[in-house]
Amino acid sequence: MRIARFEVDGLARYGVVDGDSVVEVRGDIFGSFDRTSTSHVLNDVHLLAPVTPSQMFGPGVNFADHLHEATSITGQAEMAETPQPWHKAISAIINPGDDIVIPYDSTTGIQHEGECLAVIGQTTKRVSPEQAWDHILGYTCGNDISERTWQRNDNSMWRGKGSDTFAPIGPWIDTEFDPKAGGDMIVTLNGEEVQRASTADMYFDFGVLISYISQQLTLKPGDVVWSGTTGDPRNMNPGDEVVVEVVGIGKLANPVAMEPRSN
Amino acid sequence: MRIARFEVDGLARYGVVDGDSVVEVRGDIFGSFDRTSTSHVLNDVHLLAPVTPSQMFGPGVNFADHLHEATSITGQAEMAETPQPWHKAISAIINPGDDIVIPYDSTTGIQHEGECLAVIGQTTKRVSPEQAWDHILGYTCGNDISERTWQRNDNSMWRGKGSDTFAPIGPWIDTEFDPKAGGDMIVTLNGEEVQRASTADMYFDFGVLISYISQQLTLKPGDVVWSGTTGDPRNMNPGDEVVVEVVGIGKLANPVAMEPRSN
Repeated sequence: MRIARFEVDGLARYGVVDGDSVVEVRGDIFGSFDRTSTSHVLNDVHLLAPVTPSQMFGPGVNFADHLHEATSITGQAEMAETPQPWHKAISAIINPGDDIVIPYDSTTGIQHEGECLAVIGQTTKRVSPEQAWDHILGYTCGNDISERTWQRNDNSMWRGKGSDTFAPIGPWIDTEFDPKAGGDMIVTLNGEEVQRASTADMYFDFGVLISYISQQLTLKPGDVVWSGTTGDPRNMNPGDEVVVEVVGIGKLANPVAMEPRSN
Repeated sequence: MRIARFEVDGLARYGVVDGDSVVEVRGDIFGSFDRTSTSHVLNDVHLLAPVTPSQMFGPGVNFADHLHEATSITGQAEMAETPQPWHKAISAIINPGDDIVIPYDSTTGIQHEGECLAVIGQTTKRVSPEQAWDHILGYTCGNDISERTWQRNDNSMWRGKGSDTFAPIGPWIDTEFDPKAGGDMIVTLNGEEVQRASTADMYFDFGVLISYISQQLTLKPGDVVWSGTTGDPRNMNPGDEVVVEVVGIGKLANPVAMEPRSN
């Protein structure tokens, strides 16, 4: 099942994607809900980020072949023994199709990181890695936009990965995707493939990540855990279009713009 | 004016503290609101954390005389040239009187940090330090509970300062407090004074902190910025009571408990 969030008449609604249509639902997507008789043509609705998390967490370096990139940014020389969770700012969330905005005071530009996101389905505290899988509602795509100078020089990721518009999420939550079986996470920049990795190659899988975070911190329905990324992300320029696809889930496309200095 | 949040019949309400009473209000505490005819004896109501922020930020080391403590924890040898914001987990927020819980897997125990908190009153992006003051609704007290081993060894503060119950906040929002004029932030542990500093001695004041964060990240009404702390915080033990007072605002008292291992 694919659960989308979209806007109709200025109101956010949830619906289930059914072929070329999306059928509005009534109820709680984290509890029980029913399909209504109202449906829309999928291409006609304005898709929103499919969740409104209370908190989001990145995993730290989570692909062995992203390590050399991480080494150049933060000096981290080896894969960590445990996940290294960090807060990704929820104020950075934007919808599919929204502009990713390069801050005018960014010194070295911004880069894409195409990732798979696990959406927590129920309150989660001190679960085992095995139990954690049952606490996931489903998966979506995300772009962990990064400003490398801020990431390198600051003590936290608050702006290096948390500036406004740095968290495009979508297009919907897929409840049947299986990251252990593996789905390629592919980023294209203006149509050219620039990143590819499989969720099956996550160093710490979602079960381990969620279990680890839940030992100290209660995760809530809708909270989001990012997979981490791999490869050598590139700088993006105004006018670019970046697409994150997780094969089996869908595609998240966003244009890139420059913040006007008058802001 | 003092704006409190409290529970009546299981529902959270806002009210204005008026002597020994709290008068319920109708409306939006960040917009316009009116006093109702319903009032309660202040001592009889169950006070809640006075805000439900979407995000909270610590400032990094923000008192010169906390630097030697910080040096021993993180190795930071000098005051930073800019604030070093970091996310304090909102899932850690607890109410006045709620137990601060020592995680059973904490290796070195937990410490208090008594702080003054600025509550954002309106949407805030790219404001100057001077403008930032007008974006503050008021101030409250907070206890930035810290597990030093996690703080030292992890790449972020996600659990070192973000574990469940690590963010007691209260007792109310004081809209007339002036941190530039200075109010002593005093912590007592079982009645003994263990920390004291003045908000006037913040290295980066709230105007600077909020302006700095707002350059990259939109702050929302209710978001919270912590002052930072000073001195040599002590370990706390089950059965302790810790009180954070900001003179001119009020007192935030919490007991300390140990998490049962069966959790």
